[in-house]
Amino acid sequence: MLPDSLQTAIDELSKLPGIGPRTAERLAFHLLREGESESTALGNALGKLHDGIRLCSTCHHIAESDLCDICTSPRRDTSVIAIVEEPLDVIAIEKTGAYRGLYHVLGGVLSPIDGIGPKQLNVTSLLKRLGDKQLEEVILATNASTEGEATALYVQRQIEDKKLRLSRLARGLPVGSDLEYADQITLGRALEGRQAL
Amino acid sequence: MLPDSLQTAIDELSKLPGIGPRTAERLAFHLLREGESESTALGNALGKLHDGIRLCSTCHHIAESDLCDICTSPRRDTSVIAIVEEPLDVIAIEKTGAYRGLYHVLGGVLSPIDGIGPKQLNVTSLLKRLGDKQLEEVILATNASTEGEATALYVQRQIEDKKLRLSRLARGLPVGSDLEYADQITLGRALEGRQAL
Repeated sequence: MLPDSLQTAIDELSKLPGIGPRTAERLAFHLLREGESESTALGNALGKLHDGIRLCSTCHHIAESDLCDICTSPRRDTSVIAIVEEPLDVIAIEKTGAYRGLYHVLGGVLSPIDGIGPKQLNVTSLLKRLGDKQLEEVILATNASTEGEATALYVQRQIEDKKLRLSRLARGLPVGSDLEYADQITLGRALEGRQAL
Repeated sequence: MLPDSLQTAIDELSKLPGIGPRTAERLAFHLLREGESESTALGNALGKLHDGIRLCSTCHHIAESDLCDICTSPRRDTSVIAIVEEPLDVIAIEKTGAYRGLYHVLGGVLSPIDGIGPKQLNVTSLLKRLGDKQLEEVILATNASTEGEATALYVQRQIEDKKLRLSRLARGLPVGSDLEYADQITLGRALEGRQAL
């Protein structure tokens, strides 16, 4: 019943994660109402999204040349590597401004059900980097989910024999949250990891 | 810090209604991960969104030629016109399958703050259509919001002197909802509009 071009746009939009058919419809009609320049700008931007983007050959973060900005920066602390799941995690940590070390992007988490084992993750290249003499500490910065924890445990076992400081991100109450609304596991972790004053 | 093409995509995505900078980031990274074909398909679809779409010269619903599918259909009941705000409302009503009449899309609601008065809406063309001898009933199907109600009231005053049956969509409890969670106004309207059994 809808014009083809509109239906195609709705179908494509609804393939995005978290965007169902009704939201897709609303977005498409919004773009229709806004006029052609807005939808063309968005269309072009998405069409060119991959242009000139590749993955850093060292840390697998997104990059515009062989190495990413972080790996090539002379101002980073090369004695620490934070192991994360995805490029988005790098960006989230960078935004805190609290970390000056390097990263290693695994490209996912262990998930046997989805057929993702250690070989599907960037583990081999990680083990190579651990031979670097400057390296002193490895931070396991995977998500606080079951898969994230399992992946961290796997990586930890691969690293244990190397003489490196190993740490992981603190678990505890999110800043600004109410203790009474915290789930039991988070509260338990916050107690375990309580900090001396 | 992000590659240009990625930053542009995030900026453009975050212009969409209901999509903030973090969601835009997540969508862009999703498309980056999915590979080039998906983002190109979406980009093309959005770039071509306006192709061949215009507004029906009679009812102002979206159309692929001068008149929309509904206005040209021989199977519609031409004795009823439902007045709606946007093309999306036409689609929502069409999905119910409960209406066989025609539509008139106002193209918005009265909103003096945004500078939208009767002249910015498709009112003149509506008044012309009301002269049609076949027409018997007009349904005011604007949103149940303050602006929607005000617009319906305005249209009602324009129409009152014509000898037409006027109605508006029933207000009441949404199907499947709990009475105790309904807001006072909705519950009040549901009482007022109670139906005899």
